[in-house]
Amino acid sequence: MTWCNGYHGPTIGIAYTFDFQTFYQCENAFLPFNRNGVLFPEKINGKYAMLSRPSDSGHTPFGDIYISFSPDMKYWGEHRSVMKTVPFEQSAWQCLKIGAGTVPIRTDEGWLMFYHGVIQTCNGFRYSMGAVLLDLADPTKVLHRSMEYLLAPAAPYELCGDVPNVVFPCAALHEGDRVAVYYGAADTCVGMAFGHISEIIEFLKKQ
Amino acid sequence: MTWCNGYHGPTIGIAYTFDFQTFYQCENAFLPFNRNGVLFPEKINGKYAMLSRPSDSGHTPFGDIYISFSPDMKYWGEHRSVMKTVPFEQSAWQCLKIGAGTVPIRTDEGWLMFYHGVIQTCNGFRYSMGAVLLDLADPTKVLHRSMEYLLAPAAPYELCGDVPNVVFPCAALHEGDRVAVYYGAADTCVGMAFGHISEIIEFLKKQ
Amino acid sequence: MTWCNGYHGPTIGIAYTFDFQTFYQCENAFLPFNRNGVLFPEKINGKYAMLSRPSDSGHTPFGDIYISFSPDMKYWGEHRSVMKTVPFEQSAWQCLKIGAGTVPIRTDEGWLMFYHGVIQTCNGFRYSMGAVLLDLADPTKVLHRSMEYLLAPAAPYELCGDVPNVVFPCAALHEGDRVAVYYGAADTCVGMAFGHISEIIEFLKKQ
Amino acid sequence: MTWCNGYHGPTIGIAYTFDFQTFYQCENAFLPFNRNGVLFPEKINGKYAMLSRPSDSGHTPFGDIYISFSPDMKYWGEHRSVMKTVPFEQSAWQCLKIGAGTVPIRTDEGWLMFYHGVIQTCNGFRYSMGAVLLDLADPTKVLHRSMEYLLAPAAPYELCGDVPNVVFPCAALHEGDRVAVYYGAADTCVGMAFGHISEIIEFLKKQ
Amino acid sequence: MTWCNGYHGPTIGIAYTFDFQTFYQCENAFLPFNRNGVLFPEKINGKYAMLSRPSDSGHTPFGDIYISFSPDMKYWGEHRSVMKTVPFEQSAWQCLKIGAGTVPIRTDEGWLMFYHGVIQTCNGFRYSMGAVLLDLADPTKVLHRSMEYLLAPAAPYELCGDVPNVVFPCAALHEGDRVAVYYGAADTCVGMAFGHISEIIEFLKKQ
Amino acid sequence: MTWCNGYHGPTIGIAYTFDFQTFYQCENAFLPFNRNGVLFPEKINGKYAMLSRPSDSGHTPFGDIYISFSPDMKYWGEHRSVMKTVPFEQSAWQCLKIGAGTVPIRTDEGWLMFYHGVIQTCNGFRYSMGAVLLDLADPTKVLHRSMEYLLAPAAPYELCGDVPNVVFPCAALHEGDRVAVYYGAADTCVGMAFGHISEIIEFLKKQ
Repeated sequence: MTWCNGYHGPTIGIAYTFDFQTFYQCENAFLPFNRNGVLFPEKINGKYAMLSRPSDSGHTPFGDIYISFSPDMKYWGEHRSVMKTVPFEQSAWQCLKIGAGTVPIRTDEGWLMFYHGVIQTCNGFRYSMGAVLLDLADPTKVLHRSMEYLLAPAAPYELCGDVPNVVFPCAALHEGDRVAVYYGAADTCVGMAFGHISEIIEFLKKQ
Repeated sequence: MTWCNGYHGPTIGIAYTFDFQTFYQCENAFLPFNRNGVLFPEKINGKYAMLSRPSDSGHTPFGDIYISFSPDMKYWGEHRSVMKTVPFEQSAWQCLKIGAGTVPIRTDEGWLMFYHGVIQTCNGFRYSMGAVLLDLADPTKVLHRSMEYLLAPAAPYELCGDVPNVVFPCAALHEGDRVAVYYGAADTCVGMAFGHISEIIEFLKKQ
Repeated sequence: MTWCNGYHGPTIGIAYTFDFQTFYQCENAFLPFNRNGVLFPEKINGKYAMLSRPSDSGHTPFGDIYISFSPDMKYWGEHRSVMKTVPFEQSAWQCLKIGAGTVPIRTDEGWLMFYHGVIQTCNGFRYSMGAVLLDLADPTKVLHRSMEYLLAPAAPYELCGDVPNVVFPCAALHEGDRVAVYYGAADTCVGMAFGHISEIIEFLKKQ
Repeated sequence: MTWCNGYHGPTIGIAYTFDFQTFYQCENAFLPFNRNGVLFPEKINGKYAMLSRPSDSGHTPFGDIYISFSPDMKYWGEHRSVMKTVPFEQSAWQCLKIGAGTVPIRTDEGWLMFYHGVIQTCNGFRYSMGAVLLDLADPTKVLHRSMEYLLAPAAPYELCGDVPNVVFPCAALHEGDRVAVYYGAADTCVGMAFGHISEIIEFLKKQ
Repeated sequence: MTWCNGYHGPTIGIAYTFDFQTFYQCENAFLPFNRNGVLFPEKINGKYAMLSRPSDSGHTPFGDIYISFSPDMKYWGEHRSVMKTVPFEQSAWQCLKIGAGTVPIRTDEGWLMFYHGVIQTCNGFRYSMGAVLLDLADPTKVLHRSMEYLLAPAAPYELCGDVPNVVFPCAALHEGDRVAVYYGAADTCVGMAFGHISEIIEFLKKQ
Repeated sequence: MTWCNGYHGPTIGIAYTFDFQTFYQCENAFLPFNRNGVLFPEKINGKYAMLSRPSDSGHTPFGDIYISFSPDMKYWGEHRSVMKTVPFEQSAWQCLKIGAGTVPIRTDEGWLMFYHGVIQTCNGFRYSMGAVLLDLADPTKVLHRSMEYLLAPAAPYELCGDVPNVVFPCAALHEGDRVAVYYGAADTCVGMAFGHISEIIEFLKKQ
């Protein structure tokens, strides 16, 4: 498990469990301030790999996605930039910051990962959901990426709540071609969005 | 060698050399954004140890000193908070942010390290120099720390220049009890301040 | 009556009436900038007592509750801090600022007062309602205070309107154990929330 | 046609068409940064006349309406201030910035123009709609102006959407005394508001 | 004595002494946040009178001078606006904020008081010194006020120091027509400026 | 003559004189907010040409240089981008904003123009001087531009004054190969810098 762990600010917590009753907490992966840590579901070239988004101590007005590697899940290094924000003119919904969302799904075409992108309107941050396909052998390489979003706040429970205008992907369950994405809605409730992996990949390839 | 290395923002670069002619660059220690990385001059409990100051993408208005450990200088972990800023009422010159400065000097009393502290006046940041004594066996423990500064901008070349009102310790050479601190002055020139280690430790113990 | 009176900025206006037809305005209690002035319904130790929240000239990003005393409702002094904001980790909804809301209700357990607390999300301020029990004899002393809120924006008319995500207690009517709190909702309409004083006090005591 | 044209920032684009199939783009009227350019439907004293709102490179926190003249729709000059924001105490909804909205409609009483006004609440910008009557012969002169708004966000599709709390007049069709105003709602959909020109003018005259 | 007293933020402290050895502290005059409290040297219409400058919790970017009255130096009221900032175009050096400086000096022409004015340049706040003549019988009335400053940072110890570009009047000693103003220079040292009261009043009358 | 003219904010004033006794003011060239307007000393392709820097209503934190043309010095159009800021990594001194300074000098190699560039340090804006060579026939084309500055604040009267750390070119007199640049120093006095046009052009060509 990884989560946004408070240690003098947000950073990436790591823990494991065998029975979902008892949890063993490991060392935090990184120094604060960091958010949106997502572990790959298997080792890559013999090392653990984690995506994360370096942040600041507040409502961070910047943010790109990086990858880091570890031989033992205790010490991390080989940090590389993976994806950056996109200029407003090209893809407005992800022009302020982006952050990894779901554990990447291995597909024949690459690692499929759902992420969030943020635009700053005159009324605050608006979070939408996109996806990216990373290279299987070298996940620092972006193969295809959504310039259009897959999901943006539109339903009442996405538009209104503790923090309005937020859809924020957190986890993805998949079986065969079907995928279900759990996402935070308005920081108040959890939504689910369903799709087909093959269709999403087609969508990404066209961008 | 460690320095503030640009990789999609400032982070901590590491390199080594045998002859000061040819330099070999290692992996960056941390994700951006980070500044003021200082390596201990010897391993501690079998591991390399580095102080650093997590930052943001601009003129960071916050900042505390952390320590991280590494078995191989490539992968880093076991991040711990070492020192934080001090409230304005107690020690105004270090109330906004602090950052490690010089490679710690081993003394009988502990690791002696010069650092900078910053206050935000209505006319910008003002950088002063203090010192701290960290526990020899466990450098996450602060033994004594300067509540008064050791040096603050006062000379013309410290008060005026590219960035006014800055004294910023970078390196310390010592021989016996004598120590010379190289410090950036007004981001324009390099100053040197001389002292006796025993006197500085006495000063710290009284605080 | 007290209200937020404009005199070169917001400050606390005082007026009285015998028939709710003719109103007599007194001197403002304080210098600007001040908001959320609430008068105790009876003298305390022979003096009038007023809670207020010192502010600034805009959408104040700070604010604690103070008490002041007056022999004559014209000159005020003996200003004391009563309640402060609470760190995000302990009680997020009241981490940015707080302000007195309703005229305190005398109960056997102390003065019961409903107040608002504010958190700053990435999409602006969110106002929730809590309560506090102040000492009868010395109302500068907090006996019990809500760490959890009593009411937060959830209904459509609280989430949407001129200023979204606001519930703001203004007045409380009580009869026996029953209490009705009038509160501003989204700065657009007035809501009413009903409760039992004994239950609210039980709730506060558990915190 | 005029629109907010991107040229190193927003500025006022001009184009024409004979058949709404083929469009011919002219020179931008002004240097960036400018928004809300509205052309008068006929020449005034032999010259083209355009209203606009000088802006900055972001979510501009200021803005008044100016008029400029041109002999040929290519070179513009004789810039004059027409309308400014109004202090919060007098007309809160238009205290931060204002911007021209619809092509002015010639009436016996003057040029009738719908415009937007903005207030900055603690939760961002709120856009409402007002109207103004400009002098027929000298449109730099304001004859009557709405101190109360004509329309403010109240319907769900005005209160919620990509940018909450926005009604933004864009175009007005009129036939006889009837007028239909197209307006952007929450930056997400287009609303229509109907009225009678004579009633609106009566409303303006009373202000 | 009055001074800027820390009580959950800056406010106006009052104390008295008979021998400058033992000091008796009274109640703070006002709620925080307040600075630059200056007591008149005698009662006015039977009451103590104090000038002050309501502030915020930081490097306040606004500020005007108010007067308050007290029957007993414990409770204060009858707060009135005395002087405000002046628009940039008319008197740039006092366009951001102003604050009372010296205890007013009784002259035949009125109360002579030295104050500071602040402009915000792109490099921070710059503090200059002006003077004002207040009505003897009704000190809420400004008779004459300096549109030009009397003293602005020019000497090296005024331009450079802990806070550059500051001259800040604190106290004035006078004997006959001669006056000596003690002023803070660059928040680092204390300067003295000498003048003749009659000349300063002539200067003010011409403005 | 052109200057920064106040008309509801800064914009570019134009005036002419035959004897430097009587001045005739023309229409402002542009809408506010604009600064640093510089007229070419002769018509280009039959039209007047002016460089300027669109700004905002305050201490503008952005700014690039544009050119505009006019058939009659009254109406202006054909606005084109000429030069933009340079990323910090490439030319730190001109990474925040730039603005035209001196009337361009016709040379065989192109129009030589001195301009200012600004960096935002943690202690405010720092203004330095560079130069650019624009194409004679098409001055929207940059031929050579200084990546290193020609002059940066270093002398006491440039480092200290009303606005510290400013050198700001305003006018250039030339005779043969010699050129004298008048520049504002610390917004307090006027400096002069001398050079040889041929050397400056050589310098620009090497960049």
